[in-house]
Parts: sequence; C-alpha cells; structure tokens
Amino acid sequence: MKTGKNLLNITLLSVLAACASHANAAAPLMIQEQGSFAAGGTMITAPGTFNPRKPMTPDGQTYHGDHAYTFYQIPVDARKLPIVMWHGAGQFSKTWETTADGREGFQNTFLRRQFGVYLIDQPRRGDAGRSMVEATVKPVPDEQLWFNQFRIGLWPNYFEGVQVARDAQTRDQFFRAMTPNTGPFDMAVVSDGVSAVFDKIGPGILFTHSQGGGPGWLTAIKNNKVKAIVAFEPGSSFVFPLGEVPAPIPSAFDTVQGAAVPMDQFMALTRIPILILYGDNIPEQAVDLPAQDSWRARLTMARLWRDAVNQHGGDVRLIHLPEIGIKGNTHFPMSDLNNVQIADLVSGFLTEKHLD
Amino acid sequence: MKTGKNLLNITLLSVLAACASHANAAAPLMIQEQGSFAAGGTMITAPGTFNPRKPMTPDGQTYHGDHAYTFYQIPVDARKLPIVMWHGAGQFSKTWETTADGREGFQNTFLRRQFGVYLIDQPRRGDAGRSMVEATVKPVPDEQLWFNQFRIGLWPNYFEGVQVARDAQTRDQFFRAMTPNTGPFDMAVVSDGVSAVFDKIGPGILFTHSQGGGPGWLTAIKNNKVKAIVAFEPGSSFVFPLGEVPAPIPSAFDTVQGAAVPMDQFMALTRIPILILYGDNIPEQAVDLPAQDSWRARLTMARLWRDAVNQHGGDVRLIHLPEIGIKGNTHFPMSDLNNVQIADLVSGFLTEKHLD
Repeated sequence: MKTGKNLLNITLLSVLAACASHANAAAPLMIQEQGSFAAGGTMITAPGTFNPRKPMTPDGQTYHGDHAYTFYQIPVDARKLPIVMWHGAGQFSKTWETTADGREGFQNTFLRRQFGVYLIDQPRRGDAGRSMVEATVKPVPDEQLWFNQFRIGLWPNYFEGVQVARDAQTRDQFFRAMTPNTGPFDMAVVSDGVSAVFDKIGPGILFTHSQGGGPGWLTAIKNNKVKAIVAFEPGSSFVFPLGEVPAPIPSAFDTVQGAAVPMDQFMALTRIPILILYGDNIPEQAVDLPAQDSWRARLTMARLWRDAVNQHGGDVRLIHLPEIGIKGNTHFPMSDLNNVQIADLVSGFLTEKHLD
Repeated sequence: MKTGKNLLNITLLSVLAACASHANAAAPLMIQEQGSFAAGGTMITAPGTFNPRKPMTPDGQTYHGDHAYTFYQIPVDARKLPIVMWHGAGQFSKTWETTADGREGFQNTFLRRQFGVYLIDQPRRGDAGRSMVEATVKPVPDEQLWFNQFRIGLWPNYFEGVQVARDAQTRDQFFRAMTPNTGPFDMAVVSDGVSAVFDKIGPGILFTHSQGGGPGWLTAIKNNKVKAIVAFEPGSSFVFPLGEVPAPIPSAFDTVQGAAVPMDQFMALTRIPILILYGDNIPEQAVDLPAQDSWRARLTMARLWRDAVNQHGGDVRLIHLPEIGIKGNTHFPMSDLNNVQIADLVSGFLTEKHLD
C-alpha cells in the first residue's frame, strides 16, 4: 500500500513539475519545503549572576541580536541555485511579496519559475529587530519624500506613464510597506547577517534593492557562495579598489562617494556575473529636484563602477531600462505594473549565465 | 488543447486534495494563493506644505502606521474558515513557523490540514513596525527571564521531561525568535489592527498566544467575523462584565487583574466556541519563583474567566494539559516537541465545533 501511494505521488509530482513550466498566477504553487530561521548575529552577557527571584534585573542575563531573519520556500523540482531577496532602506521582505496594488511580487514569480526563494529581513529591521545597539523610533512624517525619492512622481502628481496604480488603496499599502530600523544601519552588520544566511543555505543568487546594493557587494566579497547578483537600483555604496575611487559626485540631495576596499577584496566582484537595473525618470543632466537628482548621481557612479569591475576582468551589465525601451519604471521595478517584463529580463540573464 | 490541459489539472488537483488528507512533512504543500498585506492603522499629516526641494523637512508630509501586517497562504481545496495566528509578547509570526529545533510549526501543520493560514505581526511589532508613538529600543539582557517565564526550566536547568530540544543551536534560534516593540504595547491599537485583518478576509478562526490572548478577546468583541478562538496560554488580560470582575490575584511576579467591559461587549464572547490550553510546570499552590508563580495566577484567573463566560451562556473549554496526561509542555505548546499532538487536540476541537 505504502509503496503504491509513494509511486502515485512520484508520478503526480512529475506531471505537476511539467505543468509548472507553464505556470501562471492562477496555478497552485507546489512547495516542497518552507520555513524560517535566524542567521548570524552576536550575543552579550551582562556582568553578575542571574537571580531567578529578580528576573527584571539584567545581571548575568544574555541578549542575542543583530541576526538576519529569513522566510524561505523551495518549490517542487527546484533549480539548483535559490534566490536570496534583500530589501532596501526602510523596507523589509514585503518588497518582494504582494505588490501594493495586489499583484504577485517576485517571491511568487520566481517560485513559479522553480527557484527556491529566501526573503530577508536584515539585522535591525522588521522581524530581525533585536539590535545590539540602542535606537529611538520616531513617527516623523516623511512619505512625500519617499514618493518622490522612489520616483513615482513629483508629489502629488504621478509621472506620465509611470508603472504604478494611482488609487488611494495602493498608496496606503505602499506607505505601510515601510518599517523602521531598530538600531543604526551598519553595512558590516547587515552584510554579516546575509552572509550567514548563505553559510546556512549554500550557493545562491543574490537580488538586492536600493540600500541593500552596497552591503550586497560586501556580502559577495565576504562569501563566495554568492554566485551572482541582480541589483535593482543600487544606492550610493559602490566599492572600488584602493587608489581607484572616483571623484565624489555631488547632487541636489547628497554627494555620492565610492568606498575603498583592498584589491583582493574588490577582485571577488570580478568573479561573478552581476546585473544592475535602473528605472525611468532619472535625468542625464543635473536638476534642482533632490529626489531625481540623487538618482542621476547614483546612476553615474554605477556606470563608473561597472567600468571599473569590467576593466579588472569582471562581468557587470548595467541596464538603464528606458535605453532598451522599457519605460515608466520607478525605484521598485520588481513590483511595478510591468514586473513580469522585468522578471523576464532577469530570467534571460540568469539563463544566459547558466544560473538556472 | 487548453481544455484538455485544464481537465488534466482538475483531475490532478482532485487526486492531490485526496492525498493531502494523508499529508505528512515530506509531502509538498499545494498553495492556491499566497501573499501579504497591511490592515488597519492610522495616518497623520504634519502642518505646513511639502516642499520637494526640502524633503527632509516634515512640513505637509504624511505618516502611516499602527497597521497590522499579515502573510497568508491558502491551500488548494481549503476549508471554509481560515486560521489567523497571532503571536505573544516579544514575538512575531515566527511563533507559528519553523520551530527553534527545525521542525514544522503550526503554519505548515494547519496548511497541511487544509486551512488557510494568516500569520500576524501586530501593530508596532516586527514587519508592522511603523508606530504612531515614539519608542526607544534597548538591548537589555533579559533572556534568562524568558527561559524561566516560558517555563522551559529554571535557568540553566531544563524541567525534567520538558518538550524542548536542549542543544545550543536550538537555544540560539529560540532567543533570536524575539523582536522588540517599536512603540508602546496598546491593547486597543493591536486589537484594532487584527480586527481590520478580519474585515479584509471575512470569517475566520483566531489562534492567540500569551500576550495576544487579551487583545484577542477584544478583537472578538469588536468583530463578529471571529468565529472561534483557540488561546494558547493567554496572559493576564481577561475581560469580565462590569461589576463581576473577580478580586486581583497576587503572584511572586505581578498581580493578575481582570478588566471590566460593559455586559453587551462581554456577551460577544459567549457566542463563539473558545478553547484555552495551558502547559505543564504550573504550580497549583503559590511558590516564590516569579516565573512559575505568574502562571499559577494566570491559570487561576483563566478558570474564573471560563466560569464567568459559561455562566452567561458561553462555550469556553479550558484544558490544563497535564490533567489530560499531556506532560512537559512549555509556554509554547505550538512549537514544543509534541506539537503534532497539540495540533491533533486543536483539530479535534475544531471538528467538534463544526469549524472545519
């Protein structure tokens, strides 16, 4: 009986795996395994001796923090390399989940394309909130800043043709997809945390978004289990070899500066394929609007970085989406209205680099 | 061709649905739909006018916060009522996910039993971190308090026969399953958030843990879409009719006090089946150990509450697990080593009350 049922299951799985290659949003997801864990982090012990009759006193007690948290799903018949998806500033795993207007995000999209998917909350953010450094969380109104900075438009107007639904409910969900830092943002801490995820899961592909871009490079330097990076609109923290850091690029928002690392560290970034994507409404010339001008400076630095890595034998491709005819993308190409088109672009890259 | 494929899919789904009733941890999860959203919350607007050239100034900007966040999964051939799973103090959705020693939690267990599952991060916790009230997050060592308070043992010793793996890696994962409040804990705010989840999803069953118990009762009072509650080790906030609040129960940890609500609100709790579970190592007589004595007081108050609701025509069943021969459970019966046995107990209750 048992053997018969197992055989039936195996047959069904084979047929369903075949079906999965035609997967669409209406088809069920076949998940072989899913779960969550913490990775990395540190621990302190307060001096003294714990007294169970005075439990509110820290004496002799421990505190674990600064770990990353990940929720993962491995589909049936998964491809060899899973994808680790890492959010940007003020965001969490939600970046890759249901879009603000209720469509599927890259979590589901790449599960349907038979990749294992690990969603990160970086140390000191969201569900990885236990921080080793104190912080105060303040409700300071800032959402018009983000609306502009994320290049949805110039508040309260939307950019013409922008790939974003314009209803109030979508805006509400979009703003509620933010969550604060519970400790100071620290490039070393967050890259240690995500590197520890790779130590647990083995080789994989890293997707980064925005602020995650900089520590994403550091993670690949630290951990050769990072086999490729797809960076969506990486922020300001590009690393160059000592002595080869380009001049800072001022903008109406801030000044974008490269960071120096020893050559042997930098060379790690020449050994993996890297795809960088930037969306629309980034001016080529300086403008006096901080939100848009900050992206002009970042895109300029990203191009210098691509050239530096490639000159040292690397394989970086930077696509400014409007240049290949893909218009209207915001800072969130993974959740914009055309996110399936963006996923197809990424899938093509992964196929080309034999990463699937 | 298309019709043929659809027919094949339907046949496969029927067979797989049948298989699902024999589901085990090795079988794939068949997920019809999964995603995430924010629910409820409020919004403020700073006085003044937003100036896009001064984006760091709050003038005229908005701030959304105090929403709940939920990640949900609906299995193929789901039962009518989904389960909303709500964490306790210092915890988040992880309570119901992979256990600290790496087994499946109630998220997967009840998906396999064909329930839709909604995992909550309550307002001001974890991925719902955007709070309308300022807070400071401090890394104060407190884990020996929790080890004792969660009745794993008397640090550094484990209770004899406790249903917990004793290795260092399990302890590490257990302590890292905590995340701080990013605003003051507020019963009204968190119950509003979870009530808003029910408004979005419709009728469902509410599982609460510990601190979630008290606002869980409030949620059922606010929202008649809560069709049943299973409360795992509810904490101190039991609500009684005005004039019927029992005398406070002092313990070596704190004093447990009932809260008063108008009779018409209280009566909402008499209209739904409620199951309350408490684990092992709760003394019947006062002891001078705060951790254990706090649970003696809570269990005592819970029994008074059960009697009060039932005297008003309600349907509350309280099971102190050792009394039915289930030994060694901690404050986390949903993730203890015998959590499948606990799930079976809960499933039996749901079947008996025609909730499945």
